[in-house]
Amino acid sequence: MTVFSGRSAVEPFHAMDVLAEANRRRAAGHPVISMAVGQPADPAPLAVRGAAERALRDGRISYTDALGLKALREAIAAHYHDHYDVSVDPARIAVTTGSSAAFNLAFLVYFDPGDRVAITRPGYPAYRNILRALGLEVVEIATGGGAEASLTADALRAAHAEKPLKGVLFASPANPTGAVIAPAALRDIIETAQELGIRVISDEIYHRLSYEHEDVTALSFAADVTVINSFSKYYCMTGWRIGWMVLPKEAVRPIERVAQSLYISAPELSQIAAVEAFGATAELEAVKSRYRRSREILMRRLPEIGLALAAPMDGAFYAYCDISRFTNDSMDFAHRMIAETNVAATPGHDFDPIEGHRTMRFSYAGKVEDIEEAVERLADWLS
Amino acid sequence: MTVFSGRSAVEPFHAMDVLAEANRRRAAGHPVISMAVGQPADPAPLAVRGAAERALRDGRISYTDALGLKALREAIAAHYHDHYDVSVDPARIAVTTGSSAAFNLAFLVYFDPGDRVAITRPGYPAYRNILRALGLEVVEIATGGGAEASLTADALRAAHAEKPLKGVLFASPANPTGAVIAPAALRDIIETAQELGIRVISDEIYHRLSYEHEDVTALSFAADVTVINSFSKYYCMTGWRIGWMVLPKEAVRPIERVAQSLYISAPELSQIAAVEAFGATAELEAVKSRYRRSREILMRRLPEIGLALAAPMDGAFYAYCDISRFTNDSMDFAHRMIAETNVAATPGHDFDPIEGHRTMRFSYAGKVEDIEEAVERLADWLS
Repeated sequence: MTVFSGRSAVEPFHAMDVLAEANRRRAAGHPVISMAVGQPADPAPLAVRGAAERALRDGRISYTDALGLKALREAIAAHYHDHYDVSVDPARIAVTTGSSAAFNLAFLVYFDPGDRVAITRPGYPAYRNILRALGLEVVEIATGGGAEASLTADALRAAHAEKPLKGVLFASPANPTGAVIAPAALRDIIETAQELGIRVISDEIYHRLSYEHEDVTALSFAADVTVINSFSKYYCMTGWRIGWMVLPKEAVRPIERVAQSLYISAPELSQIAAVEAFGATAELEAVKSRYRRSREILMRRLPEIGLALAAPMDGAFYAYCDISRFTNDSMDFAHRMIAETNVAATPGHDFDPIEGHRTMRFSYAGKVEDIEEAVERLADWLS
Repeated sequence: MTVFSGRSAVEPFHAMDVLAEANRRRAAGHPVISMAVGQPADPAPLAVRGAAERALRDGRISYTDALGLKALREAIAAHYHDHYDVSVDPARIAVTTGSSAAFNLAFLVYFDPGDRVAITRPGYPAYRNILRALGLEVVEIATGGGAEASLTADALRAAHAEKPLKGVLFASPANPTGAVIAPAALRDIIETAQELGIRVISDEIYHRLSYEHEDVTALSFAADVTVINSFSKYYCMTGWRIGWMVLPKEAVRPIERVAQSLYISAPELSQIAAVEAFGATAELEAVKSRYRRSREILMRRLPEIGLALAAPMDGAFYAYCDISRFTNDSMDFAHRMIAETNVAATPGHDFDPIEGHRTMRFSYAGKVEDIEEAVERLADWLS
């Protein structure tokens, strides 16, 4: 019985495969520096870990309501007030098992098999893989380099004109490029989507990690968009698997029903701990200042050693590079790079099935000294 | 934009709604006793919590390989040797975010939309809900009461003869009944399924919670079945969201690919902690001895107060009762019961859409004294 479903034929998430290879090499004693996965080197803030320790001592870690602990939903709602000056009813917050669960829930509840959903290319590979596994048609809107690195209202309109779209999902700051959508452009995208009846999902997981711009949430322009966010990136809580959605009011109950069966609830310890994350700004801004240093190193050194930037490094903690000077096969490049320099990074193929053979994504969420060391190893290797 | 997908029209998981109502009433100061959710009153074993505390102090909680930490996969494989005397390669273990993720992954990888998958009625509602959300055809095989409380090879053959099945999923001990499939019957089911080309998924989440029988895993009879299990029940780790699958060798990579995109990884802290669970048998057997006492109380008192047992209480921590002496509407019964006695239990409708109007499930995973108190409240209420 070796036949598997059509929908299991998704691409592997190569970054995870590179992570696994990096872990194997590290376990075998190699001095591996991983720039493969978007994962902060710093632990979760002290107050977060303290809350988790207290909860462990208190004892029982239980299922929660499917939409999450009341205290966390309230803390998240307060964050929209404090950080964006946007009012959100805590009843519209769904706590999820990372943003991964949020994407799956949104796709299941908003779309029927065969519906067309637009994402950008390059983009986060799990979007494409989850959409396909659920039988949805993925419409990839190519973004260019430089100033054209993000989705535009015009590109959305053009894709819809070809054949109507049911949804659009975009991220700003984006993965893998780091590009940020300017407020006016974001407003245009949302207004255009609403005019055309396209459901908007705004992935804001890299908010608070912009280096040149203020964060603007899609909720500033409309209340019936869906925002997905997580504690993984800015808040340094990847392995805690804790994220959230802000939902249009009428979507709350459908999302809750599906979440009950698919997830029961997000991990309670992570929920209890995450309440403290919003109070840890001083600690987290110190972490961010280290990303800023790494970013400056990479912005300067990568082009010098032949790795041209394929998009502006506005935010997140990624440098997306054009490697076409060296190769036309980013997968092979990634494998040789880890074997010969012990530096792991992600082949562009993950993010862009068409043009990713000539790009690589380097994450600078690691330690500054590791980033420095990695760049010098690459400089030697490439020269 | 208020139209949702067809697949979002799943039934709510009423037990979770009852839990939410119980939580609201408790927060308002009512002396609620919840027998609604299958959730141990005891915390995770001390060694489990100790390992989590140490990991918190060490610092970073990260993504892991999608299939889980090597140490945990090895500990799970060792458990098959120690507990069942069955040899399992750690490479065949996938660590999952609770059994919830395991079901979703199995359904996605094994079945295409429209495929027919058999489950039992009554049964765990998330089976039905996830299968339907993924576009699969749910074939419910009714089980009777008493000695006929479980799936049989004959019933499987009959369902397949009607129209071919692609898969069958069953649990022993079962939820909501607690019924255990005898070893010879289990062998028959598996051999019949293999003869007919039906993929077998064995839900063993209530293993180690049998009161009259030894555990027998489906892996004793075939290596190409899929076993799903979790640390939630016997190991008292519900809110940690940590479970596992044992996979046929050739299914490992397809499951890994889909898991990478849908889950990234299970929570790392829970993975680190769960390694210690298999060494906590003395503590966990003490917990089980309390379930045994509660079970004896319920086996005696429930029939006395008019709540006839609808199935044998072989295992798990559930009493499945026939309430037809009092009502024909278990949903209304559950709501009145919590409002008038502050005892929460789950309407049978969750488990059996056809005959569940006349059944209720009572979980005895709570404290013995709470179970005693709840039964006496119900005795007063029903008399």
